[in-house]
Amino acid sequence: MSVYGASVTKLIEKFESLPGVGHKSAERMAFFLLRKSEDEVRDFAEAIFDARKHLRFCSVCQNMSDKETCDICSNASRDRSVICVVQEPRDVQAIERSREFSGTYHVLHGAISPMNGIGPDDIRIKELLSRLDGSVKEVIVATNSDVEGEATAMYIARLIKPLGVRVTRIARGLPVGGDLEYADDVTLGAALQHRVDI
Amino acid sequence: MSVYGASVTKLIEKFESLPGVGHKSAERMAFFLLRKSEDEVRDFAEAIFDARKHLRFCSVCQNMSDKETCDICSNASRDRSVICVVQEPRDVQAIERSREFSGTYHVLHGAISPMNGIGPDDIRIKELLSRLDGSVKEVIVATNSDVEGEATAMYIARLIKPLGVRVTRIARGLPVGGDLEYADDVTLGAALQHRVDI
Repeated sequence: MSVYGASVTKLIEKFESLPGVGHKSAERMAFFLLRKSEDEVRDFAEAIFDARKHLRFCSVCQNMSDKETCDICSNASRDRSVICVVQEPRDVQAIERSREFSGTYHVLHGAISPMNGIGPDDIRIKELLSRLDGSVKEVIVATNSDVEGEATAMYIARLIKPLGVRVTRIARGLPVGGDLEYADDVTLGAALQHRVDI
Repeated sequence: MSVYGASVTKLIEKFESLPGVGHKSAERMAFFLLRKSEDEVRDFAEAIFDARKHLRFCSVCQNMSDKETCDICSNASRDRSVICVVQEPRDVQAIERSREFSGTYHVLHGAISPMNGIGPDDIRIKELLSRLDGSVKEVIVATNSDVEGEATAMYIARLIKPLGVRVTRIARGLPVGGDLEYADDVTLGAALQHRVDI
């Protein structure tokens, strides 16, 4: 049903291809943009293409960056002796928001998942190993708490521990502000098991 | 917090400017696109700019179109003696989906709203009047059922009725499949008032 003409219909389809966007949302987005001036729309379109064209990965931590070395890795005040390993670039953002971490990161761009045919060589583990030159004291594995994330954490721990580097895993437990009665059994079990002295 | 580099951050901000898109959704959309090939991303960006560049309005019904006259207005099998007046292009799409209407449309591109400084001259009412050349028998006003939509409907009715054209308003009532107990008072009142013989 192309009542809008081919180019508007194509635009709606493009928006609909984005994750979490249904047909009605895609229509709203398209019409929102079409009401803007031609310059604003050109700016929007160029932002998309520019980001992809300039997409690079930090040569140290493998995070998305538009520089050879990202802002975190080139920041002299960050502690290079601690590396926090995460699955995705957005995880870096999430941890940065917590303001609890002053070390550096390593982005794997995925997790080991034999079910999906993703092995250790398909994610950036060897780039992590090449960073362990003796100056690194601790690797904090902050992969997700699902099967793939845990498997990846175990794999990395088994590789790195023999090198004499301390390997830790982020804590599992009750969400801060969370009610005990709403916690699922496994989380509650983990929270009990990893209890700390007060 | 620009941990991704300027161009990716700009892309996320652009997505965040779209209606109904929060920061996390914008991040997901940006990363989804950045994983695509450069060609696919160029195609996406061009779809946006092309739609805006080719944006025209049908000279008859004022709907968005990439032609001088839209597909509906140039379709000989549509009944030109009935015009359905709607606020937005997406309303045309909604009515087309119902498959209940074989006439033509007129898109106002808004509704009269003195609170927001939108008067009759700011929406495409005079273009509607210019279509009433004697061949039009009925104008169905299908503006929204809110204050602005009702005010616009009343305004149009007052203008057109003296010209000897039948002016109707889409029915208000219970949604099909809707439970009576969940209907709001005003809708229920309208449903009673506009009851039809069976």
